[in-house]
Amino acid sequence: MNEDWIEIEQFARKLLFEAAGNIKTSLYDSITINTKSNENDLVTNKDEEIEKFFYKEIKSKYPNHFLLGEEGKGDELNKVNGIVWILDPIDGTMNFVHQKRNFAISLGIYENGIGKMGFIFDVIHNELYFAKKGEGAFLNDKKIEPLKEVVLEEAIIAINAIWLTKNRYLNHEKLGSLVRKIRGSRSYGSAAIEMVYVATGRIDAYITPRLSPWDFAAGKIIVEELGGLCTTLTNEELSILNKSSVLVSNSSIQKELLTNYIEFFPK
Amino acid sequence: MNEDWIEIEQFARKLLFEAAGNIKTSLYDSITINTKSNENDLVTNKDEEIEKFFYKEIKSKYPNHFLLGEEGKGDELNKVNGIVWILDPIDGTMNFVHQKRNFAISLGIYENGIGKMGFIFDVIHNELYFAKKGEGAFLNDKKIEPLKEVVLEEAIIAINAIWLTKNRYLNHEKLGSLVRKIRGSRSYGSAAIEMVYVATGRIDAYITPRLSPWDFAAGKIIVEELGGLCTTLTNEELSILNKSSVLVSNSSIQKELLTNYIEFFPK
Repeated sequence: MNEDWIEIEQFARKLLFEAAGNIKTSLYDSITINTKSNENDLVTNKDEEIEKFFYKEIKSKYPNHFLLGEEGKGDELNKVNGIVWILDPIDGTMNFVHQKRNFAISLGIYENGIGKMGFIFDVIHNELYFAKKGEGAFLNDKKIEPLKEVVLEEAIIAINAIWLTKNRYLNHEKLGSLVRKIRGSRSYGSAAIEMVYVATGRIDAYITPRLSPWDFAAGKIIVEELGGLCTTLTNEELSILNKSSVLVSNSSIQKELLTNYIEFFPK
Repeated sequence: MNEDWIEIEQFARKLLFEAAGNIKTSLYDSITINTKSNENDLVTNKDEEIEKFFYKEIKSKYPNHFLLGEEGKGDELNKVNGIVWILDPIDGTMNFVHQKRNFAISLGIYENGIGKMGFIFDVIHNELYFAKKGEGAFLNDKKIEPLKEVVLEEAIIAINAIWLTKNRYLNHEKLGSLVRKIRGSRSYGSAAIEMVYVATGRIDAYITPRLSPWDFAAGKIIVEELGGLCTTLTNEELSILNKSSVLVSNSSIQKELLTNYIEFFPK
């Protein structure tokens, strides 16, 4: 099948802008978000609404494409064949509710399991990160430079404080020695934002024990296009059909992180 | 002495915009920041340059005012008498170097030890947070709403992962039980940014064991103007003459944090 990827890209951009318009309008309308329970309703409603919107629009234009989404309003997939749009309408929902910023729309488009295009749209800051496999990555229309080497002692790594406490996923003591070794740690509360931060070299790695495909589908394409690595915490390939642990990393420190600091306990 | 605070405010705004222009220009000029050592030079130079600029301008207009700054280019103070401008030219220097965002100019103006005006300018996002004691706080020209009550289980708290590892300042096990109790934790790497995040209710507290007066001078005024609390980690008043631990908090959870979760080890 010969897909017109330029057309798909343009169509994806249009849908992203339309969804962003919807999100912004609802945030500006402060009347609708007076109380905490209203806020929680808002985010659920928005997530579902945007996912349904993408599903309807995609199916109408490309009836043979699939949509995999957080809210389960798309297709149920058990194989990666064909073209699959993988969407998180609002990645960083806690930030969306409490901060009204620091969230993103995350959209990856895969063909037979291979990432073709990734979009991460930081709506509030008007920053659209985009990569097309083999053709580079862009922040709005500016090309992003490939990642440069770093050393661990100078690295900034995103890791949430919770993983430094005893937990069932990660050896928190090993992580503790990592946090004491590196230049600094950060935590932003949105996988999509954290992945584009690695992609742009603002941070050098992101460690997290449990993400869903819609959390990492777009970011993986963008990170890899810039020379970064995106695997499980046990160095396996990520699958768009499964939840998994995720290590996003500048390639120069990935092996050292996996070997010396990350011990992941599978279920 | 009758000070013209409206004139001081306007003058401070002018200096902040001029300093921001300087910072932005240097970031856009990518030729000057090709290597890591150049980056480190850049930040040191910029910090010093902006502090000298403030010192020269302030002394020229208000010869009897003092400037206390991170780079030591201002006055050496051992008393709080008179009007003291307290400046961190670039708060979040690691972010400035590595991210070229998520830093701020922090400027507090105190009279006889009492905070009169606080400015925190997130230069890259064009967000100027400002409070004038007793007259409200503003984000750009929009009034910021006073803080609402929160409960700890729904709180988002900024705390760096390093304090969840064994360290000489804080009981990391107590903090661990806090991180497991709250809704989420974050870490942004700039005290000024973290303080305005508390002030605006985007997060509910910020816990840090060691800040200098220029890190908290402006934020304290803004946070308190919105009903938040800003003390040491042992619930003492902050002094603009001393380094100290800092707890910035929504008032509804401050006592619980101090009583049950924060154990600070003084030197």
